[in-house]
Amino acid sequence: MSILVLGTVALDTVKTPHGLRKHMLGGSAVHFSMSARLFTEVHLSAIVGKDFPARHIEFLREKGVILDSLIRSSGKTFKWAGEYKGDLNCALTKDTQLGVLLEFSPRIEPRQRKIKNIFLANVDPDIQSKLLDCMPGSRLIGLDSMNYWIHNKRQALLKLFKRVDIYVANDQEARDLTGESNLIKAARSLEKLGPKMVLIKKGEHGVIFCSGSFVFCLPAYPVDKVIDPTGAGDTFAGGFMGYLSTRKKIDRMSIKRALGYGTIAASFNVEGFGVEKTSRLWLTDLEKRLGVFRDLVLF
Amino acid sequence: MSILVLGTVALDTVKTPHGLRKHMLGGSAVHFSMSARLFTEVHLSAIVGKDFPARHIEFLREKGVILDSLIRSSGKTFKWAGEYKGDLNCALTKDTQLGVLLEFSPRIEPRQRKIKNIFLANVDPDIQSKLLDCMPGSRLIGLDSMNYWIHNKRQALLKLFKRVDIYVANDQEARDLTGESNLIKAARSLEKLGPKMVLIKKGEHGVIFCSGSFVFCLPAYPVDKVIDPTGAGDTFAGGFMGYLSTRKKIDRMSIKRALGYGTIAASFNVEGFGVEKTSRLWLTDLEKRLGVFRDLVLF
Repeated sequence: MSILVLGTVALDTVKTPHGLRKHMLGGSAVHFSMSARLFTEVHLSAIVGKDFPARHIEFLREKGVILDSLIRSSGKTFKWAGEYKGDLNCALTKDTQLGVLLEFSPRIEPRQRKIKNIFLANVDPDIQSKLLDCMPGSRLIGLDSMNYWIHNKRQALLKLFKRVDIYVANDQEARDLTGESNLIKAARSLEKLGPKMVLIKKGEHGVIFCSGSFVFCLPAYPVDKVIDPTGAGDTFAGGFMGYLSTRKKIDRMSIKRALGYGTIAASFNVEGFGVEKTSRLWLTDLEKRLGVFRDLVLF
Repeated sequence: MSILVLGTVALDTVKTPHGLRKHMLGGSAVHFSMSARLFTEVHLSAIVGKDFPARHIEFLREKGVILDSLIRSSGKTFKWAGEYKGDLNCALTKDTQLGVLLEFSPRIEPRQRKIKNIFLANVDPDIQSKLLDCMPGSRLIGLDSMNYWIHNKRQALLKLFKRVDIYVANDQEARDLTGESNLIKAARSLEKLGPKMVLIKKGEHGVIFCSGSFVFCLPAYPVDKVIDPTGAGDTFAGGFMGYLSTRKKIDRMSIKRALGYGTIAASFNVEGFGVEKTSRLWLTDLEKRLGVFRDLVLF
């Protein structure tokens, strides 16, 4: 079954100890698509400006991403510039130009409204909510957010929690939202807010997944040359949601496998700038590394 | 085969959000012994002062720890006071009174000198080195240290690296020693310094083990009520080394299992103050939780 992702399409400028890239194709919906496309048809809902290069549109199409609901506006494309130092675990934002994001109101083609799997990547919770209004028949909804919305649109976000199945947070967001420093406790508090399933991403330290009495943990796949971690979380979500979209039953076994795929997809993402690595992946590449990974955590 | 641990026996005063305990039995050698004793006979080499309560000696004996090389001196027992706030990941040292540690020179009974498995818990690298001089026939030597020695006795520590099989570090120590922020790279740099095997502990984020081309990762066992993390690293080492001491062959499979046991032992340690929990454990308790843990990371 196909999946619809709502998020950003951006032009990213990234500096890491391994180099500088200017105005690369980036954004949460793009990173998500690069891994989700390996499992299923991905429909993208986002907005770009007049300055968005035609070659990026072409590139996304070639990768099989359905762009019927990508709005092309007369303004400027969302731009983010950041730098990673030292251990590359934390991005230092140098510049953010929201541009067309300020006017973004998702438009979903009628034929796309029956899509059953949805991922709301990080944008304003009001926009995320608006998208859900267009999608009445969903079976699996994932939600991501960020600290900015947790602090500035908390009520809208809490309302949204009641409408989604999986909330995907990083450790800091989970702590900020709940006031709980212990991540298992934080996950349990988040479940009480609505989502049946809570996935906490800890970057290089892996993930924790909680759903009722079911708790599952995975370390990250060990990568010894991290080039650019931008988009690793969205790539994780794309692998995770992409795999689940193909499953009839969402049970413990499929969730475990989905977390494995997400982990491996993210490990490829950090090995190159932007979507350099993930855009060249085949499912067999994921499968192969997943086999190595399984051996690496099996005892 | 039995194991000898060199380290501290201390009186710990610990404050956490869950309470305050004054002058509890603590120290690296004690925490190590509590988990290692579940696998094999543990011999302890340490020093205490005149003020060390007889009931603690009795308690250690009851737990099966061999105290023939525990020196009782006329000075004051080593005392540490610390506090944990917030997420309990980081101890704030309030007071350290080295006392008899300043005069410590390990004395090993002749009949103990044939012990094949040795763990050098965190003390001055010169003392660790002295202990090794007494133990000519060892087959497996583990080494722990801390930032203080990395910065103040770097040369002595580097010399010691050539004499040990496994170096056990936490993430910060591994980074400080090597200048590498990526932990896989740090582990590989550490291997080049001498130890064939490097184990990096990441607290609530689990462990990474590296030995040549063999890399193994485990998340921590998820604990939702952390009471007091003091000694978790030593308890981990005790489970890890304790299990390995019983193995004829130290191969990938036995190392994986040993890491599992270490992880589980540490998870019990943090659930109570001091050795409250670990001193009451049976091997079957470890086995049981290990089964749950295996299910929790198996995908």
